[in-house]
Amino acid sequence: MTTQQILEAARTAKSALALASGETRQQALLGMADALCDPEQIREILAANAQDMEAAKGHITNVMLDRLALTPERIHAMAQGIREVAALPDPVGRVLDRVERPNGLVIEKTAVPMGVIAIIYESRPNVTSDAAALALKSGNACILRCGKEAWRSANAIVAALRQGIRTSGLPETAVCLIEDTTHASANALMTAVGYVDLLIPRGGAGLIRACVENAKVPCIQTGTGICHIFVDDTADQDKALNIIENAKASRPSVCNAEEVCLVHAAIAPEFLPRLAQRLGADRAARGLQPVELRLDPAAATLIPGTPAGPRDFDTEFLDYILAVRVVDSVEEAVRHIAAHSTGHSEAILTQTPAHADLFTAAVDSAAVYVNCSTRFTDGGEFGLGCEMGISTQKLHARGPMGLAELCSYKYIIQGSGQIR
Amino acid sequence: MTTQQILEAARTAKSALALASGETRQQALLGMADALCDPEQIREILAANAQDMEAAKGHITNVMLDRLALTPERIHAMAQGIREVAALPDPVGRVLDRVERPNGLVIEKTAVPMGVIAIIYESRPNVTSDAAALALKSGNACILRCGKEAWRSANAIVAALRQGIRTSGLPETAVCLIEDTTHASANALMTAVGYVDLLIPRGGAGLIRACVENAKVPCIQTGTGICHIFVDDTADQDKALNIIENAKASRPSVCNAEEVCLVHAAIAPEFLPRLAQRLGADRAARGLQPVELRLDPAAATLIPGTPAGPRDFDTEFLDYILAVRVVDSVEEAVRHIAAHSTGHSEAILTQTPAHADLFTAAVDSAAVYVNCSTRFTDGGEFGLGCEMGISTQKLHARGPMGLAELCSYKYIIQGSGQIR
Repeated sequence: MTTQQILEAARTAKSALALASGETRQQALLGMADALCDPEQIREILAANAQDMEAAKGHITNVMLDRLALTPERIHAMAQGIREVAALPDPVGRVLDRVERPNGLVIEKTAVPMGVIAIIYESRPNVTSDAAALALKSGNACILRCGKEAWRSANAIVAALRQGIRTSGLPETAVCLIEDTTHASANALMTAVGYVDLLIPRGGAGLIRACVENAKVPCIQTGTGICHIFVDDTADQDKALNIIENAKASRPSVCNAEEVCLVHAAIAPEFLPRLAQRLGADRAARGLQPVELRLDPAAATLIPGTPAGPRDFDTEFLDYILAVRVVDSVEEAVRHIAAHSTGHSEAILTQTPAHADLFTAAVDSAAVYVNCSTRFTDGGEFGLGCEMGISTQKLHARGPMGLAELCSYKYIIQGSGQIR
Repeated sequence: MTTQQILEAARTAKSALALASGETRQQALLGMADALCDPEQIREILAANAQDMEAAKGHITNVMLDRLALTPERIHAMAQGIREVAALPDPVGRVLDRVERPNGLVIEKTAVPMGVIAIIYESRPNVTSDAAALALKSGNACILRCGKEAWRSANAIVAALRQGIRTSGLPETAVCLIEDTTHASANALMTAVGYVDLLIPRGGAGLIRACVENAKVPCIQTGTGICHIFVDDTADQDKALNIIENAKASRPSVCNAEEVCLVHAAIAPEFLPRLAQRLGADRAARGLQPVELRLDPAAATLIPGTPAGPRDFDTEFLDYILAVRVVDSVEEAVRHIAAHSTGHSEAILTQTPAHADLFTAAVDSAAVYVNCSTRFTDGGEFGLGCEMGISTQKLHARGPMGLAELCSYKYIIQGSGQIR
């Protein structure tokens, strides 16, 4: 189907979904999970994935190739993920607020699906089933647009999911995959006013920027995280070393990993050598990859390391690299963060409550932590049960987006002849 | 100041506001109200308004001229409006959700200001003080950009408001007025990424469309309302006549006025003549302006009236004009609304509960009414105490926007050394 035909099919499915009960959506989700476990579907998906892998070899990195690869276990894990989403409470139809007015009108603010959610993503096939499950659970039709490396895999997965959807009586076009993997289809989604109710780009900074620049449909920015940790003069330094190593090095490729460490000048002469030791020689001795430090001039007088270049405090390294700066106060830390953060996650490590309060009030980010790792910014860790991405914008959704954030609301008003 | 200087000044004020207590913001609001009642400020505002009126005469309609005109009473009413906003509960700092995780993290989802809100509006000077009050109450700096007809008045009002703000110790740049009234400044606001956290256009369809087309900052569409009322076969016809006259003719120039009436075919032969009588001869007999009916072919066989033209079911008349169509069922009414509505407000008049349920579930609008007038879509009528406009989009805010809708949230997480 052409992209335009898919837009129309999804809009039609949205009308059916608006009227579907939670039980019907549930049946569709369980059907999707079952279909993914159907041996014939697994064979089809693995065959398609083998073609994707073959075509991608030599064109993408080994890390990307590993993300692309599917196995029967990974496919079963995708099905399990769908069952976990199915088990969450239904977000649709919840009465968020209710008021009975003096004139007798009963006004209920009621959660409703967004309608059609379009998701642009790159080469991880499991996003296909995750996104479809979250969309359907929240009553939305979804249009998936994946990178060309993963297209055959995604297409086979969507074929299985649709087999499952059909068992519920819902239209299979509740889950659509865009066939065109060129820029043209991404642009078509960004400008599909009247068809796409919410666009969620999941991917690199370039994709996010393109959406912000070009989208004429409502769009949520996700993901880019230049996360800061500020070590205050009263910080518990042992805990600080644990937290920073965790935030930086437990999984450097993710958006909630620390990229910048700010250290209070009063403790920098003591703390920075310990930090360099912990992230450098200590890690090497434990057989772990050491972290390269990029130092501002003040830090460079205290420990060895690479001098920070002009972009190092504005870069999402996603690697074993940490920019380090010495600051004179919590206020200077807040100012640095205001100038350089992407609004994702920041932490203060301190035993001074007034500093913690100032930091949490003044830092304008989705998640602001006191005395723990930034790595907790995650739907599962926040108790949402799932996640469609992490919003770094302030409109509608901020931080991990769960099912509630995939809903809008409408006011339903019951009257008995009232006029104004 | 240039527009760029104003953007920077507002961003600086936003940082001060993020740390200001509710008491300080309250003091600023009461200071603003007092300053508007200061006789010297009233003289300045009336003098500026007289210049605006003089310059506008002959260039804008009499209705617009009346909206532009200020009197001491109208200025005192603006001050009273500010005091009413001040008396509302503080929306900032509310804990919207709180969870204690098994690992001991305490996660609080906390309401915070958006930051800088830009409002583009036309020639009503009272919007200047209303918008400033709502923004400040919700902890936001605001950048106001009014039409050139009202600029001198707005400038004098902002000077008074700033006199009031200074008494609180907050920066007076918490309320800024753009000096340039050309398209250039509107475009600058639409593209002020990093400066404007939320853009709210309040005005005609052209302004709204320009913002949707061009805005690169988060934007909320307000206002356009092609509102439908569907008269079902079981409707109480006496109540229906009251409701339709109220929805259409009590104030035709507002966005929650009815523009289209859909009538079930089973009652059309009885109901349409009564409707024509009620909106036509009856109104004339009462000395009121009759409503012109624009009829689809089926309605035209039953009553006299103007045949509907090709655009009449897609026009926000804002006038004593009502488009009328006969439909065969509630499903056909829903389909018509899906194809023609702007998503503002729609009503079903029926005594069949199943039809009411189908209508409220299937109609994808901000407010969906059963057996009452669409005119109730209003912040005051919904019990919000105030209103910054009526959103017709689904992201973030839908329907009347009160103080809660001018806030975002952030997650504040208290830990004791947790790592992941």
